Amino acid sequence: MKTVEKNYSPGLDGVIAAETKISVLDTVESQIIIRGYDLIDLSKKYTYLDIVNLLLLGQLPSKDEKVALENKLKANYAIPYEIIDIFKLLPKDTHPMDGLRTGISSLAGFDPKIDDRSFHTNLERAYKLLGSMPNIVANSYRVLNNQEVVEPDASLSYSANFYYMITGKKPTKTEEEIFDQSLILYSEHEMPNSTFTARVIASTQSDLYGALTGAVASLKGNLHGGANEAVMHMLLEAKTVEGFEKLLKSKLAKKEKIMGFGHRVYMKKMDPRALIMKQALRKLCDAKGDDLLYRMGEAGEAIMKEEKGLYPNLDYYAAPVYYMLGLPIELYTPIFFSSRTAGLCAHVIEQHENNRLFRPRVIYTGERHNVKQA
Amino acid sequence: MKTVEKNYSPGLDGVIAAETKISVLDTVESQIIIRGYDLIDLSKKYTYLDIVNLLLLGQLPSKDEKVALENKLKANYAIPYEIIDIFKLLPKDTHPMDGLRTGISSLAGFDPKIDDRSFHTNLERAYKLLGSMPNIVANSYRVLNNQEVVEPDASLSYSANFYYMITGKKPTKTEEEIFDQSLILYSEHEMPNSTFTARVIASTQSDLYGALTGAVASLKGNLHGGANEAVMHMLLEAKTVEGFEKLLKSKLAKKEKIMGFGHRVYMKKMDPRALIMKQALRKLCDAKGDDLLYRMGEAGEAIMKEEKGLYPNLDYYAAPVYYMLGLPIELYTPIFFSSRTAGLCAHVIEQHENNRLFRPRVIYTGERHNVKQA
Repeated sequence: MKTVEKNYSPGLDGVIAAETKISVLDTVESQIIIRGYDLIDLSKKYTYLDIVNLLLLGQLPSKDEKVALENKLKANYAIPYEIIDIFKLLPKDTHPMDGLRTGISSLAGFDPKIDDRSFHTNLERAYKLLGSMPNIVANSYRVLNNQEVVEPDASLSYSANFYYMITGKKPTKTEEEIFDQSLILYSEHEMPNSTFTARVIASTQSDLYGALTGAVASLKGNLHGGANEAVMHMLLEAKTVEGFEKLLKSKLAKKEKIMGFGHRVYMKKMDPRALIMKQALRKLCDAKGDDLLYRMGEAGEAIMKEEKGLYPNLDYYAAPVYYMLGLPIELYTPIFFSSRTAGLCAHVIEQHENNRLFRPRVIYTGERHNVKQA
Repeated sequence: MKTVEKNYSPGLDGVIAAETKISVLDTVESQIIIRGYDLIDLSKKYTYLDIVNLLLLGQLPSKDEKVALENKLKANYAIPYEIIDIFKLLPKDTHPMDGLRTGISSLAGFDPKIDDRSFHTNLERAYKLLGSMPNIVANSYRVLNNQEVVEPDASLSYSANFYYMITGKKPTKTEEEIFDQSLILYSEHEMPNSTFTARVIASTQSDLYGALTGAVASLKGNLHGGANEAVMHMLLEAKTVEGFEKLLKSKLAKKEKIMGFGHRVYMKKMDPRALIMKQALRKLCDAKGDDLLYRMGEAGEAIMKEEKGLYPNLDYYAAPVYYMLGLPIELYTPIFFSSRTAGLCAHVIEQHENNRLFRPRVIYTGERHNVKQA
């Protein structure tokens, strides 16, 4: 075992898990590169559907290609009524991520080509899943919260329909643009735990539904996708700028983990996505004439920089943005997942196209007995 | 990025993913060590419930502890009727592993302590899942195949009840012993893809249900748990000893992957578990007065050794054993999963007790563009 022990890095920190053409965190240039482009630039100039095309096919779409993509997704807005009935059978206090996971898991049985993992079928499957994700996210939440089931509105853009299905109202132009921009920022991010989970599962030649089911389970964790919800609960608990400063200082004194700051890969630099959401928060605060959350955000940012040298990550500013957009807090992580479905599908397809089964080893630190003595 | 590139081993081959006190494949001694004991010795002297105790608590149980464990599992034989109703809503051609995955995913909402990941609660949760697994496996299959739902029979041993719920009849003493022994052999095996998946998910502080859901998705893959079913389909297609020899030779000539042989870790040695199942197959063949599958097994073993230097793995002999036990082929992988639930729960608990988030990196092999030129 000697030869392998030297390869041990807890949490696979710094270990290469795969070669990929999809994305990379360029820590030298502080850029998130998506299929060759800077994600921040993309988020300022394109829409989520452009990024879906870029992630799945490797290039930004022409106008015609974008219309074709939108129509493909719209054709998949509806989900089988059995999925809604399954949501109705779940206990009402089921976690929204668990409802989402069960919905995606159930969908597998409705795929007549489930055993086909060819590039073309995987791509069609990705469109199907991306098309139905807003419906699954919104209606699993609605059923669990005794709200009426909402039908998709194919006259709306992808992001506007998503917003409408959650909130029951059509977004303003500003709301739609900011929501869409948040989906771009969450769409892909190299090899976080959930993407890694999806690729590990896909490497057994298991299918896209299974890979996404595992990724939902991963993203649910407090140390991963759950962070945006944790940030919002902190802000609501604190109520005021002074309250937030006090809360953060008290958590720092107790050495509690504070969500929304730092990132293993970015280390002590600011997550460039956070700045885009900070600007969006400013815009929303201006539009609504209420800048409390913006001021709280800036105050918290200053304290964490001063006391710990830590900078905000995307979740820190996405949380108050989603709050100002009127989205239910329990849906922040499911929305994150829905957006990330684009990146996850790209990774599963890439894994299936050039596969090697993930099968690492361990260092055994347990005992050795002779069973005869037992 | 230079410093990390040298760490790249596709599929994490030979890379250490974790320290563990649960199990290790000792390739030098050709032993599978489970909590310090040789799995092969254990499989000859103990029952599956002893191994559950060993995996979860680190020691073989006393007589009283074993009775207490059996009662704990029996208390969890029943599952909520909503889970059965969910199975009824799935399309009839849903893959049994997808039905199983949806069942486990749905169960999460019935856990009132879902956010509690303490050792004690995780342990109780493991007992609950182990207790209800035979019910989920058997009744998801039964509903999908238009068979009557079967209630668990708490007067039977754990393995006898599992067998009864699947087949509708109580096993003979020999059948019960061999089925129980197969569950021991499948119970734990270091860090295969499914166990790795479960630990990666658990490392976000996500819960046991989510980790198991991902593990089902992983085990479903052809390159992992699906192998036992593939072996049985080959044997049935071949029909005779001569037919099987011909089939294997034709597959070898076409360079097709042949399931049931070789293992990344064992390389060119025989999987020690395969021998135990080969002996069990002999016993079953003798009891039923029909040794065709045994003769086919030996013939295939000889060809693969001669032509490729490859030895059988557990799946190669577990498949005909399950066939002689009268178990439906589509349940071989779900049964494997049910048995492995013991090992998976132990790994998730160990991960939660000493956690480090899995977050590896990538080598980016894609292009770099300037978004302004797009």
